[in-house]
Amino acid sequence: MKKIIGVIGASICKKEVYEIAEKVGSLLAKNDAVLITGGLTGVMEAASKGAYTEGGITVGILPGNDKTDANPYVLIPLVTGIGEARNALIAKMCDALIAIGGEYGTLSEIALGLKMGKKVIGLLTWDIPGIIKAKDPQDAVNEALK
Amino acid sequence: MKKIIGVIGASICKKEVYEIAEKVGSLLAKNDAVLITGGLTGVMEAASKGAYTEGGITVGILPGNDKTDANPYVLIPLVTGIGEARNALIAKMCDALIAIGGEYGTLSEIALGLKMGKKVIGLLTWDIPGIIKAKDPQDAVNEALK
Amino acid sequence: MKKIIGVIGASICKKEVYEIAEKVGSLLAKNDAVLITGGLTGVMEAASKGAYTEGGITVGILPGNDKTDANPYVLIPLVTGIGEARNALIAKMCDALIAIGGEYGTLSEIALGLKMGKKVIGLLTWDIPGIIKAKDPQDAVNEALK
Amino acid sequence: MKKIIGVIGASICKKEVYEIAEKVGSLLAKNDAVLITGGLTGVMEAASKGAYTEGGITVGILPGNDKTDANPYVLIPLVTGIGEARNALIAKMCDALIAIGGEYGTLSEIALGLKMGKKVIGLLTWDIPGIIKAKDPQDAVNEALK
Repeated sequence: MKKIIGVIGASICKKEVYEIAEKVGSLLAKNDAVLITGGLTGVMEAASKGAYTEGGITVGILPGNDKTDANPYVLIPLVTGIGEARNALIAKMCDALIAIGGEYGTLSEIALGLKMGKKVIGLLTWDIPGIIKAKDPQDAVNEALK
Repeated sequence: MKKIIGVIGASICKKEVYEIAEKVGSLLAKNDAVLITGGLTGVMEAASKGAYTEGGITVGILPGNDKTDANPYVLIPLVTGIGEARNALIAKMCDALIAIGGEYGTLSEIALGLKMGKKVIGLLTWDIPGIIKAKDPQDAVNEALK
Repeated sequence: MKKIIGVIGASICKKEVYEIAEKVGSLLAKNDAVLITGGLTGVMEAASKGAYTEGGITVGILPGNDKTDANPYVLIPLVTGIGEARNALIAKMCDALIAIGGEYGTLSEIALGLKMGKKVIGLLTWDIPGIIKAKDPQDAVNEALK
Repeated sequence: MKKIIGVIGASICKKEVYEIAEKVGSLLAKNDAVLITGGLTGVMEAASKGAYTEGGITVGILPGNDKTDANPYVLIPLVTGIGEARNALIAKMCDALIAIGGEYGTLSEIALGLKMGKKVIGLLTWDIPGIIKAKDPQDAVNEALK
């Protein structure tokens, strides 16, 4: 059974963060993991781009009702129509979460993941006890797939 | 963008219904659609088996917390932990729904799908106004992908 | 612990149906039950009006994000922001459901209620096996509170 | 229309935190606000106790399927069956949130509340930018009802 890994982060991000997320997505696909993101822009797009370009399966769990909201690197856009509550689904669906940068939405996913007992790995993100800090994309992916 | 089609039906079903669902899944995969089911046994398994065997992408939206609840033909098992409320997600996520046989859970997905304005196609299922009755798997799949 | 009874029905209804729903709400409040509805117009409003006028507690589980969407007889308007998925919450939250008239949304709540093993009582509604048919509001309320 | 205020915090808490939460609940009821909590023990119980004792309306949004999970001070126990995803509902339903103490679940509600643009007031809780720090229960309630 394939590993299902979530990459969580904000819809707007700096170039540095985008590149890290893209690298994480690429490494996940190379390791045959399914990538789950929130399906939108920023970190979600970057991770999806990295994985998609590598031939990986990318799933976007969208807050709205329209699958064309998904970025172009989402192979399977799944609309939920439940708004921010979809963050709880993302946390639940994944075997492990990699948080990259991020605002309040990402913080909610980190907290929900930790509450659910999921492994949460962080790169340049919120400093919350329980997050495993990774030093780079390779380290984050290694930890997520361990 | 790939079509996303849901096959809905009960977790226990007769052989005749199982075979119809398997054929529907197979035809969906041949037409490059993504299959969504509830991920469990019966009609959900049969459709997944048909699509998976044909090399298709099969997604299971599971009610519980454990991805090993999924039948072996689900490529991407997505746990939700929200119980029967996941039926609303299934209806929402799909471009069209094909109902095959089915009990109350299926009826809820039919009703939610119709409420959401989705096309709902029926094979040997509940007789509810608004369902498009198909005469066989090919007819159902043609209608779903139209 | 107070009984929690849901009254489900469409947002547009005939005068006859409105009056029946209002009577049901009134009788529920007289019997000290908490009323849950979808919080909007039609049957939801009528039942809320009947209960509220009688001094009962009326809860509206709203699909959107704005509590002013609730009809004026909802004492506790609870926004969910999850759209039609709130129908699954309504079915789950209630000890028993009384369906009055109704379209697809009501049918989804009936089906979810029956799937969850809840008692579902019907007045001029969908003809689905498992619904207990009531002959009038008093009969429906008696059955719901039994 | 009554104000709907959420008090969020952990199911296990110290006596000091319990007393603060009870005082907050009491003050909310005196100001005719509806109290929403997660319905369980600890801070949720304390706030409910304070409000209930004062004659206030207390709603518990429970993660499970059994309304007897609610603490005895919940007037309206609403089961959701959606697990941790109910945290998103709590954040959504409230006009403002008061966080008292708290673990990961509380953090998720803080983050979701801030993401949704809700006012989040803190007493002895997580130090997250955007939270309005209150100096005591009265200050917290004043801020929540402003």
